[in-house]
Amino acid sequence: MGASSEALTQVLIPVAALVGIGFALLQWLLVSKVKVSSHDSSNGYKVKLIEADEEEEGIDNIEISIKCAEIQHAISLGATSFLFTEYKYLGIFMGVFGVIIFLFLGSVKGFSTKSEPCTYNQGNTCKPALANAVFSTIAFLLGALTSVLSGFLGMKIATYANARTTLEARKGVGKAFIIAFRSGAVMGFLLAANGLLVLYVSIYLFKLYYGDDWEGLYESITGYGLGGSSMALFGRVGGGIYTKAADVGADLVGKVERNIPEDDPRNPAVIADNVGDNVGDIAGMGSDLFGSYAESSCAALFVASISSFGINHDFTAMSYPLIISSMGIVVCLITTLFATDLFEIKNVREIEPSLKQQLLISTILMTAGIAMVSFFALPSEFTLFDFGNEKEVKNWHLFFCVSIGLWAGLVIGYITEYYTSNAYSPVQDVADSCRTGAATNVIFGLALGYKSVIIPIFAISISIYVSFSLAAMYGIAVAALGMLSTISTGLAIDAYGPISDNAGGIAEMAGMSHKIRERTDALDAAGNTTAAIGKGFAIGSAALVSLALFGAYVSRAGIKSVDVLTPKVFIGLIVGAMLPYWFSAMTMKSVGSAALKMVEEVRRQFNSIPGLMEGTAKPDYANCVKISTDASLREMIPPGALVMLTPLIVGTFFGVETLAGVLAGSLVSGVQVAISASNTGGAWDNAKKYIEAGGSEHAKSLGPRGSDCHKAAVIGDTIGDPLKDTSGPSLNILIKLMAVESLVFAPFFAAHGGLLFKFI
Amino acid sequence: MGASSEALTQVLIPVAALVGIGFALLQWLLVSKVKVSSHDSSNGYKVKLIEADEEEEGIDNIEISIKCAEIQHAISLGATSFLFTEYKYLGIFMGVFGVIIFLFLGSVKGFSTKSEPCTYNQGNTCKPALANAVFSTIAFLLGALTSVLSGFLGMKIATYANARTTLEARKGVGKAFIIAFRSGAVMGFLLAANGLLVLYVSIYLFKLYYGDDWEGLYESITGYGLGGSSMALFGRVGGGIYTKAADVGADLVGKVERNIPEDDPRNPAVIADNVGDNVGDIAGMGSDLFGSYAESSCAALFVASISSFGINHDFTAMSYPLIISSMGIVVCLITTLFATDLFEIKNVREIEPSLKQQLLISTILMTAGIAMVSFFALPSEFTLFDFGNEKEVKNWHLFFCVSIGLWAGLVIGYITEYYTSNAYSPVQDVADSCRTGAATNVIFGLALGYKSVIIPIFAISISIYVSFSLAAMYGIAVAALGMLSTISTGLAIDAYGPISDNAGGIAEMAGMSHKIRERTDALDAAGNTTAAIGKGFAIGSAALVSLALFGAYVSRAGIKSVDVLTPKVFIGLIVGAMLPYWFSAMTMKSVGSAALKMVEEVRRQFNSIPGLMEGTAKPDYANCVKISTDASLREMIPPGALVMLTPLIVGTFFGVETLAGVLAGSLVSGVQVAISASNTGGAWDNAKKYIEAGGSEHAKSLGPRGSDCHKAAVIGDTIGDPLKDTSGPSLNILIKLMAVESLVFAPFFAAHGGLLFKFI
Repeated sequence: MGASSEALTQVLIPVAALVGIGFALLQWLLVSKVKVSSHDSSNGYKVKLIEADEEEEGIDNIEISIKCAEIQHAISLGATSFLFTEYKYLGIFMGVFGVIIFLFLGSVKGFSTKSEPCTYNQGNTCKPALANAVFSTIAFLLGALTSVLSGFLGMKIATYANARTTLEARKGVGKAFIIAFRSGAVMGFLLAANGLLVLYVSIYLFKLYYGDDWEGLYESITGYGLGGSSMALFGRVGGGIYTKAADVGADLVGKVERNIPEDDPRNPAVIADNVGDNVGDIAGMGSDLFGSYAESSCAALFVASISSFGINHDFTAMSYPLIISSMGIVVCLITTLFATDLFEIKNVREIEPSLKQQLLISTILMTAGIAMVSFFALPSEFTLFDFGNEKEVKNWHLFFCVSIGLWAGLVIGYITEYYTSNAYSPVQDVADSCRTGAATNVIFGLALGYKSVIIPIFAISISIYVSFSLAAMYGIAVAALGMLSTISTGLAIDAYGPISDNAGGIAEMAGMSHKIRERTDALDAAGNTTAAIGKGFAIGSAALVSLALFGAYVSRAGIKSVDVLTPKVFIGLIVGAMLPYWFSAMTMKSVGSAALKMVEEVRRQFNSIPGLMEGTAKPDYANCVKISTDASLREMIPPGALVMLTPLIVGTFFGVETLAGVLAGSLVSGVQVAISASNTGGAWDNAKKYIEAGGSEHAKSLGPRGSDCHKAAVIGDTIGDPLKDTSGPSLNILIKLMAVESLVFAPFFAAHGGLLFKFI
Repeated sequence: MGASSEALTQVLIPVAALVGIGFALLQWLLVSKVKVSSHDSSNGYKVKLIEADEEEEGIDNIEISIKCAEIQHAISLGATSFLFTEYKYLGIFMGVFGVIIFLFLGSVKGFSTKSEPCTYNQGNTCKPALANAVFSTIAFLLGALTSVLSGFLGMKIATYANARTTLEARKGVGKAFIIAFRSGAVMGFLLAANGLLVLYVSIYLFKLYYGDDWEGLYESITGYGLGGSSMALFGRVGGGIYTKAADVGADLVGKVERNIPEDDPRNPAVIADNVGDNVGDIAGMGSDLFGSYAESSCAALFVASISSFGINHDFTAMSYPLIISSMGIVVCLITTLFATDLFEIKNVREIEPSLKQQLLISTILMTAGIAMVSFFALPSEFTLFDFGNEKEVKNWHLFFCVSIGLWAGLVIGYITEYYTSNAYSPVQDVADSCRTGAATNVIFGLALGYKSVIIPIFAISISIYVSFSLAAMYGIAVAALGMLSTISTGLAIDAYGPISDNAGGIAEMAGMSHKIRERTDALDAAGNTTAAIGKGFAIGSAALVSLALFGAYVSRAGIKSVDVLTPKVFIGLIVGAMLPYWFSAMTMKSVGSAALKMVEEVRRQFNSIPGLMEGTAKPDYANCVKISTDASLREMIPPGALVMLTPLIVGTFFGVETLAGVLAGSLVSGVQVAISASNTGGAWDNAKKYIEAGGSEHAKSLGPRGSDCHKAAVIGDTIGDPLKDTSGPSLNILIKLMAVESLVFAPFFAAHGGLLFKFI
């Protein structure tokens, strides 16, 4: 493993990233073949359809196509304007927090510019603490910008694809599926490849300054994870409040009071609702998974840098986490072809199996990929750092660590599907409980969510035990990376959901036929399940990532053990376990209050705009968009502050041990709350869809729409909205973000923390 | 502190216990002055009212009084028959588990009858392990029997008092209040005094065998806590399922489908519903708090026995936990007089303040009591065991430890009141959210529950930090005891609630006037809040008790540290944090399924019994009682098994470290779930009552009964039923029970545990 291997590594990683970006652009090109000439393009209101060779209904109806274009334009405009407003706030936050990082880390050694002896690689000289402060700040800003870019690109692609999916649905469900899926793939590959590339280039450039000081180099790089994740927090929370305020508000007046269907163009909140899907489920989720990916890479790199890889300066072995990700891009590329080119969806029932197949194929192929990478990139035996001790590890140990993370992800995905898809008994039982009203529906739904926690927790525990036993904290970091290695496919499947949802909305608003709406509904129902699976992945990987970051934090803060039996640690543990509840209370109340405001505005419009109910006057969509925007920007600040300030306050005033307790507590408690919230919400949503679709004798006996059963199911669905799209998915960011923030600030806390106990 | 002090202690403790029992009997005598001559007494259907000197409505209406007696008899019969059936199952369980304890503990040293060198008091000789096995089993059986007795006596008193409260309500709300409160006091004092006496006598008798071997003596005594708590588990879960299946079932058909009022005698499930209050809220809660009391005493005694108290054989100091409890009985006795004799309730608004005053008075008096006990019973300085280290402690340190627990209990009580009473904005906001339907009601209610966790957790954390810093694990054990020292008053207030609830039910069923019903409703509304406060106490004390037991377990299992960063501990932690969810999923689903069965039976009776709706035919109450009985006995087994088997399986196969992780995880996660579930449920219940009562302009704008707002509130209330009366309060037993069970089995796990890891 000499210079040739190093050179190969230096070429292969960026090449894989570029291949990923190229593949994403190719998919985009294929999607763009469906032409939508919209309002603001040069040729006015006209819509051209090139591939009109299959005979299907309504293809020549230019009127409808123009309407689609209009609606798409409105959604895209709303989403773009929201994100830009959000980014203004985030820009201020980035500036302020960048300064905080610089000041805190700079003050560790009193802003001294003197070089220091290294901590782990004793005898060598490392760069001054001030340099780490500067580079950590730069890495933070890079991570934040990449995260923002990921979210923004995702949103652009989704709003580009939604109307195209609707238009393709006229030709058949298979065609529409491919457009939605390809668009998801654009996002998945762009995001994974982009994240890898920026990280790789940053390391390369930082190395120009750091040279031989790999400790300092990879310490600074952890700022990248912090930047990525802090943007993800605001993206998820802000986007989550936006989308659910609009959704709940639109439903409560539209469906319940006025008795008009979902996505009806007369509903003033309908555009805000569709914008919400793009800023919450797409941009927010994109930022979130990018954050997970960045953090798990940083955690693995940091732990590796203080092991024999770092001390022996074995660049290829050091880059193992990045090579895994590179291999992931290649594997996902092949996997995608199975969905888009090798097989064709012919009817509605094939959609969900085809999406599930993607998960299975990518997992199987990736296992082989991991084996290859582990045997070629790693020395057959090496030493890892294990909290002060050394641990002998073999390359096949790491193969097992990465693989077990990967397969645990698959198990979590399948279990999530079992509990949230209406093809299985759990959701059908919940639907059945609607017979006796909304109360039993809610009781059964909550019980389902609680129950769905069991197997994922066992899967995570086994991964942790095996990977920790084999390779200490590094094992856990690469297990997390293993779970995220197929992120491109995961994101493609995940983004497919909101795109289909939007496509359905556009079909309804454009007044397209019932048949088209049925097709987009079928795409959407599968999307609900895949969205839940995506959340399962996000939470599972967050648990592993946080634990790896937690381990890295403990190493860096110089803590010898985190003993539950010391009061400092125990109070941290119990307060940490409380934080997910505090956070959920804030976000759920925010959605509730914002939804109430939306309800008032929608009612006002229905009452004050003459002809709105009759469809002769247009509602003021912009006002509803503004309400969602204002509410989400205002309401994202308190939960954001809770997460960002907790590590700073605890570390500064209570010290590193209490902070370790807080991290462990929020991790073990937050995972449960997050999984149960997501699955309960998903189950309610699909129980409602089960009754609406009436696909079996049992389902028919509960329906139809408007029956008492269905009304009870709608109540459950509405309750589930903030659980599954705001609180639940934000919690995994809470867990990860507090861990990565603690890691970045660890040198400061170790040097100056615990003020309160020092004074007592 | 010599022999004279020891003699004084030996006299004072049993005297205090006997005073408590005497006071309870006196209260019973006062309650019994309200005569209800019922069906099965010699003089047939006649009701005599002795104290009829105040003029009030309906006092001479013998018809109604006879009806009350009939209903009381039916409720009492149902409750007694359920408890006897339950006790048959529990008898089998006690036998089997007693054998398990004997076999596991006996096998530690291979059933050897040889004496062993002591573990802590080195140089001395201790009794053989086999003796500990025998005496632990006996202590377990004693604890179980005392717990069963506590629950049974409580139920007997409550079913004796319910009709008497109804009858007194005819004379005015003040008279009724005193009867309900006195009856609660009977239960509170009997239970506290009885628990203290049995424990004291057991120690005295065990000492005849153990002599100087105090280690073995107090080790065996921990079996008492295990016995008490395991009965409490089945009592809470079984009773909780019974009461909520009947309640939810009765409401869903009666209120929702048939539109008849609550507690209407035409509803076949109405007797089962009222029986449920007595077996769930009274017998279950009685067993639960007795369990907490027994465990905190045992934990404190065990920790003390391995400190200088035990090693120096200072009996008075050793008995400090028991002396605190004795002082508690005296303080509560004085406190009770404030409610029953020194002041008189004249109108409805004085009820809640009067109950709250009880908490405050008992806390203030007890603080002085603790000071006295701490300075008289303890040497001014002594040594405590702190995980292998020694810790110098002063007597005023212990005063602070006990007091901080006591005051933390008061804070938790007041916060719980703030979040669950409809006199404050949180519940009013939840009621207000009913304007937009059940969904927002549920969202706001869940958010309220999550938020209500924050301050109790800080209160618990501060208590833990202070008491641990001052006196290590012993500090936490006595802090728990401090929180429970006013248990007689706490139980009196708590039991008052279900008695008033039953009184209201009897008034309705006996067809008494609206005025009487209003009076019992006012008593009941205050009871809802005090029930929530009682649950707050139960959970807060459970957290402290579990931590103390956890510390004792760790000492006894010989674990040096519980380091979160070892994989064995961490997987324990995350799986432990999952257990409350698993348990809640089981209990909530059980309530749901049992309620569905009840709904079917009630519907069947309404459809098949002619004249039932018209009131000309009687429903078959017994069948509904049977359904609740069967369901609760069958459904209590799986969650019971989960709690009882987890420590055995984890300890035997995964070893003491993983078990330590499980205990810590379930503690920090379970506390949050329990508090939020109880408070969410309490808030929904009182939000509904707020709308029904219409006591303010705001409340009137939401009502009246039957409005859309009210219907939404009823849905929330029904969802809250299993949360607040089944899952929530059972969780604190889960936490405590696993800890005390681990403590009892610790010698076995330490000697033979961790089989799985040994084989890998």
